[in-house]
Amino acid sequence: MLAQPELIACVLELTATHGTQLERTQGHRAHALFLHLMQESDPVLAEQLHAASQTKPWTVTPLPQQARRLHNGETYPLRIAFLQASLYWPFAQTFLQRPNRQLRLGSSNFNLQAIHTTKQHSPWAGVSSWQSLIDQAQPTDEISLWFATPTCFKLGRDRQGKQRVGLIPDGQSVFQSLLRRWNAFAPTPLASPEQIEQLDIQIKRYQLRTEMLHAQDKQLGFMGKVSYKLDGDAHERRILATLADAALYLGIGAKTTQGMGLVQRISTQQPEQA
Amino acid sequence: MLAQPELIACVLELTATHGTQLERTQGHRAHALFLHLMQESDPVLAEQLHAASQTKPWTVTPLPQQARRLHNGETYPLRIAFLQASLYWPFAQTFLQRPNRQLRLGSSNFNLQAIHTTKQHSPWAGVSSWQSLIDQAQPTDEISLWFATPTCFKLGRDRQGKQRVGLIPDGQSVFQSLLRRWNAFAPTPLASPEQIEQLDIQIKRYQLRTEMLHAQDKQLGFMGKVSYKLDGDAHERRILATLADAALYLGIGAKTTQGMGLVQRISTQQPEQA
Repeated sequence: MLAQPELIACVLELTATHGTQLERTQGHRAHALFLHLMQESDPVLAEQLHAASQTKPWTVTPLPQQARRLHNGETYPLRIAFLQASLYWPFAQTFLQRPNRQLRLGSSNFNLQAIHTTKQHSPWAGVSSWQSLIDQAQPTDEISLWFATPTCFKLGRDRQGKQRVGLIPDGQSVFQSLLRRWNAFAPTPLASPEQIEQLDIQIKRYQLRTEMLHAQDKQLGFMGKVSYKLDGDAHERRILATLADAALYLGIGAKTTQGMGLVQRISTQQPEQA
Repeated sequence: MLAQPELIACVLELTATHGTQLERTQGHRAHALFLHLMQESDPVLAEQLHAASQTKPWTVTPLPQQARRLHNGETYPLRIAFLQASLYWPFAQTFLQRPNRQLRLGSSNFNLQAIHTTKQHSPWAGVSSWQSLIDQAQPTDEISLWFATPTCFKLGRDRQGKQRVGLIPDGQSVFQSLLRRWNAFAPTPLASPEQIEQLDIQIKRYQLRTEMLHAQDKQLGFMGKVSYKLDGDAHERRILATLADAALYLGIGAKTTQGMGLVQRISTQQPEQA
């Protein structure tokens, strides 16, 4: 049993108060809404968040859905992961104090109907702690990840000085990104970047495609499923498994506060695609 | 007009002489059939081919098709690309001398109905010459390739000494593979590997998945479509365009004589997948 959750992934159930046409991507609007809610719940904290360093202790993601047209009363699920429980409590409290409050996302109005934090309600919800992630991880030969929203990595700059964007989920980019977030927010680092760098994490199977995310700026990312064949001893492979399990909370790559990099570990099957 | 084709991609139209169940992958059987046909057309040449070095001057590919069950009279298209015209002529002659000859592929019997070498008959057929590929190539900012059968690259060996297989169509693997084949068979090299190595060939958009090829051994590969953003001056980008155009004949990666690495350049669109 978790004495005290430190990592909280919650799914906000927003219901449309009128028929509304959603824009293509709501990531940046969802992020604005999140900051607005934080502002309301704890102005001082919100100010600190705004000034926070590059790696933010939260992710915000409108969950992928088919329909763009919502009818009155239909649900729009918004997912927020908190990497610091101290952020979650004031946020949740505001909601408890003012249930059914109205929220605005772009030109659409919603009621905040519920906040779910359990897997029963959504595969994207859950609570955990850094230590229990470590305790529960098992060393394994293969890890599979599901990238559910466009994901990309900021690499260096090209010859013309333009930002290079990594659109391949190579093992190093993926696990270094997870490690960076882990080490930024967990009480103790899980490993050093150099330790991971030594490991040979080979892409083994995948089904992937690039997709454009329309946030404030357009940003290409990749989506889909990837399996990695792991190298290293049991201890090293357990570190990788811990990071993969933590991906649900941490997110991967760039712009995870605007809808990118929504990822979770999935069971590794060995289908013979033919 | 082509005075003398040097590169010939032909599609053999085989028709089933009875209802037959195709095996999952026919690549190695198709290759055996090809060698058998060569043996018949020119025994001395066939012997040389058999002893040929690693990079073979031909590719053999059963064209991807939906059905595994063929009815009597149904067509099974087999694609052979010759990187040396001297191989094609005796091969074609044998066919001309004995039209409608029976051929065996595994446990299935076929009639060799026709040999097509024009785009009108199949997008995988065509003739060209090394020089006309150079003459017709245009420098461009972006190149798209369609990998129509599983494709993979043999990389080095891993810690355990096991063969590593590259399952990502990164720009260097793709264009170095093309260059290696070009330089092996064309009268003059197109560029040096080092020249290509200096170029920044970024993956920009893609839709890809891994698939198992069941040849004599199983081999995973990737299939799908990829667009590359090209770096370099006009001359360098023209070299890349030439190689992309030549991919139809050259094939890419490992086991192109057993059905892998069937590739062609496709027009680059800028769809906004969203």
